Amino acid sequence: RQSAAIVAVGDELLGGAHPDLNGPWLAAELEELGIAVEHVHVVGDDELALAELLRELCAVHVLVVTSGGLGPTPDDVTRHAAARALGVELEHHEPSWSSIVALFAERGRVPTDGNRRQALFPAGATVLENDRGTAPGFVCTTERADGSPGLLASLPGPPGELQPMARAGLFPRVTKDLVVESERPVVGRLSLWGIGESDFAAAAGDWLDRATDPVMGVCARAGVLVLKATSKGDGARARVDARIDEMRARFASRVVSSDHAELEETLVAELRAAGLKLAVAESCTGGRLAGALTDVPGASAVFEAGFVTYADRIKSSVLGVPEELLRTHGAVSAPVAAAMARGARERSGADLGVSTTGVAGPDGGSAEKPVGLVVFGLATADGAVTLTRRFPAVGRERIRRYAVQQALALALW
Amino acid sequence: RQSAAIVAVGDELLGGAHPDLNGPWLAAELEELGIAVEHVHVVGDDELALAELLRELCAVHVLVVTSGGLGPTPDDVTRHAAARALGVELEHHEPSWSSIVALFAERGRVPTDGNRRQALFPAGATVLENDRGTAPGFVCTTERADGSPGLLASLPGPPGELQPMARAGLFPRVTKDLVVESERPVVGRLSLWGIGESDFAAAAGDWLDRATDPVMGVCARAGVLVLKATSKGDGARARVDARIDEMRARFASRVVSSDHAELEETLVAELRAAGLKLAVAESCTGGRLAGALTDVPGASAVFEAGFVTYADRIKSSVLGVPEELLRTHGAVSAPVAAAMARGARERSGADLGVSTTGVAGPDGGSAEKPVGLVVFGLATADGAVTLTRRFPAVGRERIRRYAVQQALALALW
Ligand SMILES: O=C(O)c1ccc[n+]([C@@H]2O[C@H](COP(=O)([O-])O)[C@@H](O)[C@H]2O)c1
Ligand SMILES: O=C(O)c1ccc[n+]([C@@H]2O[C@H](COP(=O)([O-])O)[C@@H](O)[C@H]2O)c1
Repeated sequence: RQSAAIVAVGDELLGGAHPDLNGPWLAAELEELGIAVEHVHVVGDDELALAELLRELCAVHVLVVTSGGLGPTPDDVTRHAAARALGVELEHHEPSWSSIVALFAERGRVPTDGNRRQALFPAGATVLENDRGTAPGFVCTTERADGSPGLLASLPGPPGELQPMARAGLFPRVTKDLVVESERPVVGRLSLWGIGESDFAAAAGDWLDRATDPVMGVCARAGVLVLKATSKGDGARARVDARIDEMRARFASRVVSSDHAELEETLVAELRAAGLKLAVAESCTGGRLAGALTDVPGASAVFEAGFVTYADRIKSSVLGVPEELLRTHGAVSAPVAAAMARGARERSGADLGVSTTGVAGPDGGSAEKPVGLVVFGLATADGAVTLTRRFPAVGRERIRRYAVQQALALALW
Repeated sequence: RQSAAIVAVGDELLGGAHPDLNGPWLAAELEELGIAVEHVHVVGDDELALAELLRELCAVHVLVVTSGGLGPTPDDVTRHAAARALGVELEHHEPSWSSIVALFAERGRVPTDGNRRQALFPAGATVLENDRGTAPGFVCTTERADGSPGLLASLPGPPGELQPMARAGLFPRVTKDLVVESERPVVGRLSLWGIGESDFAAAAGDWLDRATDPVMGVCARAGVLVLKATSKGDGARARVDARIDEMRARFASRVVSSDHAELEETLVAELRAAGLKLAVAESCTGGRLAGALTDVPGASAVFEAGFVTYADRIKSSVLGVPEELLRTHGAVSAPVAAAMARGARERSGADLGVSTTGVAGPDGGSAEKPVGLVVFGLATADGAVTLTRRFPAVGRERIRRYAVQQALALALW
């Protein structure tokens, strides 16, 4: 099986606030082309160290992809390191320079001297155009240690630039030069909600054995388990479909979607298909629920309104939650969650209202209402139901994320 | 200078949806202890390959840290790989097993057979307790190729478990065993808003030269540039402070904070200090602005309410935006942004109202109002101001992110 390595370049990727998003994205996309990525390297802006790493990786892999380090500043060293690794010079590419000048003109600005670096490419490289930024990418042919040919590609760091460039310029080249069609894996997916990894592992048994065909993968993501079945060769599609059907039967009540769509994508699609509109009322999730829904392109067809009623006063004035309820039961309670969901539905005229109220921490917990306690409401024309959950106290951010997932799952039922 | 390597373990980290957050966090924290991390390795769940990688890294570095692969399923291979790399056996640790049993009991459940693996550790390891999950971590001493001693530490994958464990168990050990106090760098930071990397590089000149002291780092993050100045040895504090002062003077109007706080953290702190309350009205950012503000612990002291008025009808019914305005100017317009900000302020009784309305794409763009156009409003007791920006068409997600940052920056002024 053909293997690739990915190198994400940039001191900022080691700076704490900026995780590398490109390595996992590229690895998953290449996997679907039948190219295995077993190692992503995240490294700083050191030209010599990067050149050395690229030389080593190009000797072994049919494909090496870098992301980042193609910007205009002196610490953008990828093109220099690539040329060094390949043992070639950098050359000025006039068409790229003209596009950069034109892009700046369109934004009413003039390119800096640094931008000139962005029109330099290793001799012999094929330039990959960038529709969304100033940094073009490139692909070069390499020679592996055993004399067989390979590719080295360099793409810009911002995912919004890298992804379209990879789709338009890199993957077609990879398919043409590297991928043997019969090596392409067939992949099937199923997402489950509300079952932990341990319980899944216990229920799945042999399926998780790496020697079985299809090979199974499990990926947990804020409460959702995404199961993946992969097979190759004759009859792969039938084997994968059969496995997905078996899993669907075994975990019927837990299935949220039959691809790896996010819960919010599934919900938007289902509401759209059903012609229903939704409104949300959030307290402890503070806008993250509305934010997840409106992340989905086309959300406006189903998402009417969101009310972030953080202060109790606002729960009454904006959603009409009776002050009496807040006084007797407290904000984090089933009666208030129900009243919030009803309020969101009625004030917006939507078909469904979904609410969250809870203690995400670090402050605000009590013996009776500990950090992690969240109450959810779902209002329809038939009335309101509520759900109370106590998430483990794993930190504000994760509790808020779990609560958003749970609210979406509640709306899906 | 002492160097460390980090290895993030897990097939899911190569699966596309799950970026590694631990590598960058650990790298940044170790940097502040004076230990350089130049390479983060992200690898799949392959015991033999991982053992080989750990053996190589432990021969070179004083510190090797792994994250992930300590769960209960058969594809959690880190403890086995670590034992193999160190050439020792795995041993059952009764106190860890008792804690796991107790933790499950507290959640009303029984541990699976897989959980027994979580009480296995390489012989000679020091166990690191986990307050927030079932997987304990561990630290072992290593011998480098030159015979000098080092450490190998394995921590669980969820950041909410890894971070407290690193703080409580690993960093104190690193400081005791590895760090020479005079090697600890002094770091100063400054965040700028509304200046691009190219323009900054042009204005900063020599400062970005790697040979100067302090060494400067620049990290761009959704429109905010975080500048970092680092120095070491005698007089380091004075050199760093002087550089920060110079930068503050040169970029005065662009400074948003003098540490690496997020814009929302700065805004919450400033409103709190000023005793002011805020409400937001969002259209194209769809809840992400409220979400960012309520990410900040203690937000409830300043954040009153958020209105996600995605449908135009709701802009009128909930915020009182005159239908006339929507008809004549369209939703994405300065008069509507101003009316939304005023509506949010008045309906909530807050001191400030901030609004967003725009075209995040991919749909909804026109020649007159292209994708990337966003209008912002800020309402105070003195009336409302608006700001119109055209972001480059770099995709829905990034446009929404930039718009959130711009709205926060507007509120800061
Ligand atoms: O600013 C507004 O009033 C507004 C409200 C809802 C949606 N939009 C924009 O309209 C387009 C379609 O929205 P959506 O969520 O259905 O993809 C997209 O460009 C959104 O950013 C804009
Ligand atoms: O559910 C609610 O009504 C609600 C509204 C605002 C805040 N909280 C919770 O109250 C605590 C303090 O909030 P904060 O945003 O000031 O850190 C924290 O645990 C929040 O999750 C809860």
